[in-house]
Amino acid sequence: MSASLATTAPTRFVDAGDTRFAYRRFGTPAGTPLVFTQHFMGNLDNFDPAIADALATGREIILFDNAGVGSSTGAAPNTVEGIAAGAASFIDSLGLSAVDILGHSMGGEVAQLVALDHPDLVRRLVLVGTGPRGGDAIARQGPDVGPLFGKRDELGEDMWLPIMFSPSKESQTAGHAFISRITARTEDRDIPVSGETIAAHRTAARGWASAPADNFGYLGRISQPTLVVNGSDDIVIPTINSYHLYKHLPDAELMLLPDSGHGAHFQYVERFVRRVIDFLDVQPHDTGLLVARGYP
Amino acid sequence: MSASLATTAPTRFVDAGDTRFAYRRFGTPAGTPLVFTQHFMGNLDNFDPAIADALATGREIILFDNAGVGSSTGAAPNTVEGIAAGAASFIDSLGLSAVDILGHSMGGEVAQLVALDHPDLVRRLVLVGTGPRGGDAIARQGPDVGPLFGKRDELGEDMWLPIMFSPSKESQTAGHAFISRITARTEDRDIPVSGETIAAHRTAARGWASAPADNFGYLGRISQPTLVVNGSDDIVIPTINSYHLYKHLPDAELMLLPDSGHGAHFQYVERFVRRVIDFLDVQPHDTGLLVARGYP
Repeated sequence: MSASLATTAPTRFVDAGDTRFAYRRFGTPAGTPLVFTQHFMGNLDNFDPAIADALATGREIILFDNAGVGSSTGAAPNTVEGIAAGAASFIDSLGLSAVDILGHSMGGEVAQLVALDHPDLVRRLVLVGTGPRGGDAIARQGPDVGPLFGKRDELGEDMWLPIMFSPSKESQTAGHAFISRITARTEDRDIPVSGETIAAHRTAARGWASAPADNFGYLGRISQPTLVVNGSDDIVIPTINSYHLYKHLPDAELMLLPDSGHGAHFQYVERFVRRVIDFLDVQPHDTGLLVARGYP
Repeated sequence: MSASLATTAPTRFVDAGDTRFAYRRFGTPAGTPLVFTQHFMGNLDNFDPAIADALATGREIILFDNAGVGSSTGAAPNTVEGIAAGAASFIDSLGLSAVDILGHSMGGEVAQLVALDHPDLVRRLVLVGTGPRGGDAIARQGPDVGPLFGKRDELGEDMWLPIMFSPSKESQTAGHAFISRITARTEDRDIPVSGETIAAHRTAARGWASAPADNFGYLGRISQPTLVVNGSDDIVIPTINSYHLYKHLPDAELMLLPDSGHGAHFQYVERFVRRVIDFLDVQPHDTGLLVARGYP
């Protein structure tokens, strides 16, 4: 793993208001930096190093702990709106004027609101394993789903394997590889998310899920090109919510992957990364190539 | 357009049973040939030359008229099962033992059944603007959709622009470019689909749409890796049917495109072609790259 920037990048800190944000920044200073927004109960070490490293060859990658998470100070807000304000504050504190955001799960909810509230700051969005405010069944998970988030064994296998992957042998095998990747860092590991922050974020997630759907009208005001990604059997934010995001965002593309769960991108790293690179780097230049070949 | 193989490939003929099939075959003899199966009322000239040419750089492309269509002889069957049998017979007559199939609309229904009935013949499927047998609302289109198929002006604009593209300015502009591409061939153009064949195929389409959905059980027996593609607002086979295909096929990926209709791939040629090349050529080798970079 010696070649992994994600696994070796030092944790740095930046102050914004009363919060000292912990973050890791690495990659190639070119084009638009890509900021990752994290899922419930995740800290800096829960971003998949394989994804971050692969995308870092073409841009800067910025991973961070939001307020109250891991090594960041401050109190965790108990609304997605509050968490999104923290993300915007962090990005601003780095002096960045344009970013792409890759948000997973609750991080995808956060990413939607940052894009909505800061249209000039956010260029493109990648939303993975997430859903719209008031989405279908986000708050009506099976009774066996909630308790999974409490299974905090040393490596996280009892928690993340059933949450992020499908029950199939192939998906679970990919899950074990994912666990190996996120536990590969030996030095400068992040601090586990506190019980207080978990409680606040759980309230935030429930508030998002139980909001009136209002026919997802707010999505019509998120004008950034968006790539929506999920697995076939997401038990945390059911897959149909990705379809809703796609249908109601003005400029979205949907990528749904086979035999997979809430962490489909952790399972299909190569396929996901190629698609994201196409979306971020190639697709914006989809003009003129047909003409160059002589086609109208 | 002088560089376009699709626009200049001669029409050839092959006999299978009582039918003489018209076809065009071109590209690079490498890997698995890609057979296109055509939509309702389409003949050899309705395949988008830009898509066929771009995919022909990495494989052989085979376009054909099914029985009773265009320059092919024979009577058009009035069931999708019958049309699929014709497609399999044509492929067999070329002596091919393995093909990929890219099926659009009714051609996607045909492709499903060829893959189901000939699992060893079909390696991978691309299903565009199509749906499962007994799918949602395939038979319950708006009252304004059916008559569009009768609007046969010289270029097909009155028919294909509202059927294949969304009402937006961007989509309609892409539609005009598409019409220019499919009308670019000046010599050896195909024969329009006859009224008799249209009637038979309309019966076939209605039979497919009105079949019992049976929870789409037959899709569980189509084991080939499948890429399902559609636009956001398909008025012919509503977009939700692509989601059903994806959810019920054992190994499918879904790609839904923004602000587009039944012919989304004609609108986003470059994005579609890159994705199909990844699906057909790159993805089957998604093993070991992570390991090569040192990741578990």
